[in-house]
Amino acid sequence: MKKYAIVVAGGSGSRMQAAMPKQFLPIAGEPVLMHTLRRFHAFDPDMLLVVVLPEAEILTWQNLCATHQFTLPHQVTAGGKSRFQSVKNGLEVLAQEEDGVVAVHDGVRPFIDNALLTAAYTTAAESGAAVVAVSLKESIRRVRGASSKAVNRTAYRLVQTPQCFRLPLLRRAYAQPEIPLFTDDASVVERFGHKIQLVEGSFRNIKLTTPEDIVLAEAFLLQERNSVKEG
Amino acid sequence: MKKYAIVVAGGSGSRMQAAMPKQFLPIAGEPVLMHTLRRFHAFDPDMLLVVVLPEAEILTWQNLCATHQFTLPHQVTAGGKSRFQSVKNGLEVLAQEEDGVVAVHDGVRPFIDNALLTAAYTTAAESGAAVVAVSLKESIRRVRGASSKAVNRTAYRLVQTPQCFRLPLLRRAYAQPEIPLFTDDASVVERFGHKIQLVEGSFRNIKLTTPEDIVLAEAFLLQERNSVKEG
Repeated sequence: MKKYAIVVAGGSGSRMQAAMPKQFLPIAGEPVLMHTLRRFHAFDPDMLLVVVLPEAEILTWQNLCATHQFTLPHQVTAGGKSRFQSVKNGLEVLAQEEDGVVAVHDGVRPFIDNALLTAAYTTAAESGAAVVAVSLKESIRRVRGASSKAVNRTAYRLVQTPQCFRLPLLRRAYAQPEIPLFTDDASVVERFGHKIQLVEGSFRNIKLTTPEDIVLAEAFLLQERNSVKEG
Repeated sequence: MKKYAIVVAGGSGSRMQAAMPKQFLPIAGEPVLMHTLRRFHAFDPDMLLVVVLPEAEILTWQNLCATHQFTLPHQVTAGGKSRFQSVKNGLEVLAQEEDGVVAVHDGVRPFIDNALLTAAYTTAAESGAAVVAVSLKESIRRVRGASSKAVNRTAYRLVQTPQCFRLPLLRRAYAQPEIPLFTDDASVVERFGHKIQLVEGSFRNIKLTTPEDIVLAEAFLLQERNSVKEG
């Protein structure tokens, strides 16, 4: 099975309260996005990696790559106005590819590991569409206008990435017109009529969204480095 | 307004992969539960604090208090078989109290701050019932049997604690027979027929559930201590 990854790094980072786009914020001295790409490369060095960035940030990224001597092979393409458009642009880069499994992944989710990637790619190869998700740690309420109501939390899963798909399926799904319901790739493929398999995610696989997450990311990396030293 | 807090620390900590109950795990050298109690005491030193612990752990807690010279005033009572029963036992300790606002709070949620506590107690004093909740950072799916379906994440909130209530209201709500739907205090009060107000929570207000959370808690405390030093 040929493997691909479309790493989407288009967030403005407004919730991060930082001047820099969150995908470029340094953790352990290196931009988040580089950490993310390294994990995919470590999983399979032959994988074709596509990075989708806002057009205005591509030059910054290239400068960062030069500064950090980041030479890991990857292709860069410009994002669109929405996540849907950005993934679509990423798929364009793979237009010549015939088959295989493609992961769509958040650029600011650097703590994926080989076990998670193996499970997601393998399940997608078998069933067409596999999405990493975790249980909720907290109670959940449904909001309607000014009021809200308790709902059964065991009936819900929080969706992470990678979201993996057979390439031809994802391509056909993304040929649909965009609608507001599309919050992730699973919803696009589902709308196209294909069933989604859930793969058990990890609470380590955090999306760096708020300043708290950067604190946690630094702590994770420190922990990993210490365990390598001890090992 | 008289204030009370029932701090429930009855978790077995099976998801923590630790030998010790999670409320006793040390962060920055001191059991989590002590950090939590200190925050309530800092908010209002006159507040009556009730700690609900599994009966088998009360002696351990007393020993920990002696070892750490933890002299902050609080009352301890034994928990029940469920969270519902534990809160009910906590309310028994307040049986002589007539009015005021009581917070029910997770013992393993030590990062509450004065702003959050002020908002929750004040809203409950006005409306009867206030629950701290945050938006979802991730997409969400509803599971039915072997299949799942994307739902609109903006229609949901993750519920945290404190959950604050006028004391007489909470007492009457907890006089109801227990049913499996009761996953938190809001669901008990809601079932009793009273509307719940949501108060904006904080992504710092984490519940220490998995080993990742201990890493984050240590990092938060380190950050707080550094900012005190700098200030």
